[in-house]
Amino acid sequence: MKVRVLGSAAGGGFPQWNCNCPNCDGLRRGTVRARARTQSSIAVTGDDENWVLFNASPDVLQQLREAPELQPARALRDTAIRAIVLIDAQIDHTTGLLMLREHRQPHALWCTAPVREDLSTGNPLFGVLGHYCGLDLNEIPLQGGFDIAGVPGVGFAALPLTSNAPPYSPRRDKPVPGDNIGVTLTDTRSGRRLFYAPGLGEMEPHVWAAMQAADCVLVDGTLWTDDEMIRLGASSKTSRAMGHLPQSGPGGMLEWLDRLPASTRKVLIHINNTNPILDEDSPQRAELAAHGVEVAWDGMVLSL
Amino acid sequence: MKVRVLGSAAGGGFPQWNCNCPNCDGLRRGTVRARARTQSSIAVTGDDENWVLFNASPDVLQQLREAPELQPARALRDTAIRAIVLIDAQIDHTTGLLMLREHRQPHALWCTAPVREDLSTGNPLFGVLGHYCGLDLNEIPLQGGFDIAGVPGVGFAALPLTSNAPPYSPRRDKPVPGDNIGVTLTDTRSGRRLFYAPGLGEMEPHVWAAMQAADCVLVDGTLWTDDEMIRLGASSKTSRAMGHLPQSGPGGMLEWLDRLPASTRKVLIHINNTNPILDEDSPQRAELAAHGVEVAWDGMVLSL
Repeated sequence: MKVRVLGSAAGGGFPQWNCNCPNCDGLRRGTVRARARTQSSIAVTGDDENWVLFNASPDVLQQLREAPELQPARALRDTAIRAIVLIDAQIDHTTGLLMLREHRQPHALWCTAPVREDLSTGNPLFGVLGHYCGLDLNEIPLQGGFDIAGVPGVGFAALPLTSNAPPYSPRRDKPVPGDNIGVTLTDTRSGRRLFYAPGLGEMEPHVWAAMQAADCVLVDGTLWTDDEMIRLGASSKTSRAMGHLPQSGPGGMLEWLDRLPASTRKVLIHINNTNPILDEDSPQRAELAAHGVEVAWDGMVLSL
Repeated sequence: MKVRVLGSAAGGGFPQWNCNCPNCDGLRRGTVRARARTQSSIAVTGDDENWVLFNASPDVLQQLREAPELQPARALRDTAIRAIVLIDAQIDHTTGLLMLREHRQPHALWCTAPVREDLSTGNPLFGVLGHYCGLDLNEIPLQGGFDIAGVPGVGFAALPLTSNAPPYSPRRDKPVPGDNIGVTLTDTRSGRRLFYAPGLGEMEPHVWAAMQAADCVLVDGTLWTDDEMIRLGASSKTSRAMGHLPQSGPGGMLEWLDRLPASTRKVLIHINNTNPILDEDSPQRAELAAHGVEVAWDGMVLSL
């Protein structure tokens, strides 16, 4: 099983178009040593031929251009993407569906029932796509695993994460299980597992169990401190209020990752443009390294 | 007045993610001499400081990264974009609005009444954006000119182009004036004019008059031949049926451009990935050159 990181940034990407925080401004001026990053997406394959796209980010076209494995060029119109899985209904995980409308047949699309509802009502992308390639909708179960047709070698299992529905959801501030999920990907031959959760606001017991059972965790690296956006003057909300466990501080992601076995590969993804870990020369980045924690980058491949 | 081409390709861009036509495949393999191009958008300024974005393409984030003039970095969150003009409600001209949702205030947005209707009903982007930065909506008049607050030095005048509404429009196949427009941009000091119409299916008298009155025309270069997509097996529709005058053949764009004064600068934009003019070594590209017609590229600047 191979997981390719297509986009390692949070919503807005890095640098963000209208942002001049020290990271964004420094990257543009060349005064900060950091990599540009596109918005949150991964792709997984069990046979190096048939891939599942996780999330369709606004940067999906750039991401596909930079991932030649996903364009096998066997026919006039072709793609290696056999299915798309949405982990929530947020704009930065779904807008790219509109850019994939030229598909020759309906996209096999997997999402939970609440995500389907949001993308049929508050932000009715599914209806819009019905006028183009269309969608073959499949419901992700919140208990037990599922297989995806045409994608051999990988097993999928979702679990609900407590998190708010998107701003345009009729259920905003009244979240239900399935508004956001984490997913365990299992290589069906070796049994090795990767747990993926780019938005993780609370370490619930079932989530912690999934992380302990994984050989690799690819989890929420949005913000370093809980009040990062407030101190910067970029938002009035804490990291936790936005559904993201900060890395530092009591009960933060680093403390949890420290409790995992040394053999577990630990990778942060969905990094916000303000996060000091993007600066490869920052003390925070050095602290991650000292804890054996990696920072995902666009093009990174995790083999299990 | 300065017009910067942000994206010179038609919907899908070049190369298109799922396309292996001779152009797309050749560009990826390096066997065709051509430039990659993003989707249809321009920006205009009269004072080198305040810009109007024409269309918000799905590639807008990449386009802004490649246009440093549009990020003056005067504040933590900043942009040189003072307003956005939509020339129709198509996906390749509007999806980028979702990627500009982090704006600190509502975007000043200009569109016609039918476009406003489509983006409030069939594809309700305007409603979705209301949950983020919001929009300050302004109606584009189909007669007479208009000014845009905060953008000195440029005058704007729209004219209706006969063209179908988008597939998701309640008025699909029942087009009304304003579903698609051309725009004349006038430098208010010199009086020099540029006529912009990336989708032009019919040379109506009022359109021809606007082209004759312009010092520069930046017009529909989607397809070379009327049956280009049919012969390639990529679509069942002719160029004209899709609302695009082909360049070649009787009554084609080249014949019209030939009738303009030699002093008129003639530039094609909105080039489809299948169009042979993208190949800089093609006979079709040489024919354009022989007629004094240029092909827009991402980053091209037209000064008037």
